[in-house]
Amino acid sequence: MDIKLKVGQRIKELRLQLGLSQEALANKADVDRTYMTDVENGRRNISVEVLERIIMALEISYADFFNAKEFMK
Amino acid sequence: MDIKLKVGQRIKELRLQLGLSQEALANKADVDRTYMTDVENGRRNISVEVLERIIMALEISYADFFNAKEFMK
Repeated sequence: MDIKLKVGQRIKELRLQLGLSQEALANKADVDRTYMTDVENGRRNISVEVLERIIMALEISYADFFNAKEFMK
Repeated sequence: MDIKLKVGQRIKELRLQLGLSQEALANKADVDRTYMTDVENGRRNISVEVLERIIMALEISYADFFNAKEFMK
């Protein structure tokens, strides 16, 4: 699976676990809401700086963000 | 510390553990050698697609790549 899709699915999974709307997560991560929709749908090749803002907004460590089935070899 | 620097340091650390030169890692990850030098020095805000190619070239899982002191909160 494409890395953009893997990252997007993981973000959505964690967002829903936190009970956050896309808009709330977008605001928290300081990204545009429609951009966040694209990210979750695997349509954006985000940079590590944007990834960091989203991971911080999800209140999870990098290791835990990537320690998921989507990223297992 | 800036995420670009954290990622760059971790790449260099893992590259040296594998005994690879920058050129060898750049070739393996299909990125330009001078670009790899910039990445290792934290001067590039790489995308997740480039990050994936480098992580694959380092023969490590995402979780293990990010399970390092650089990324601890």
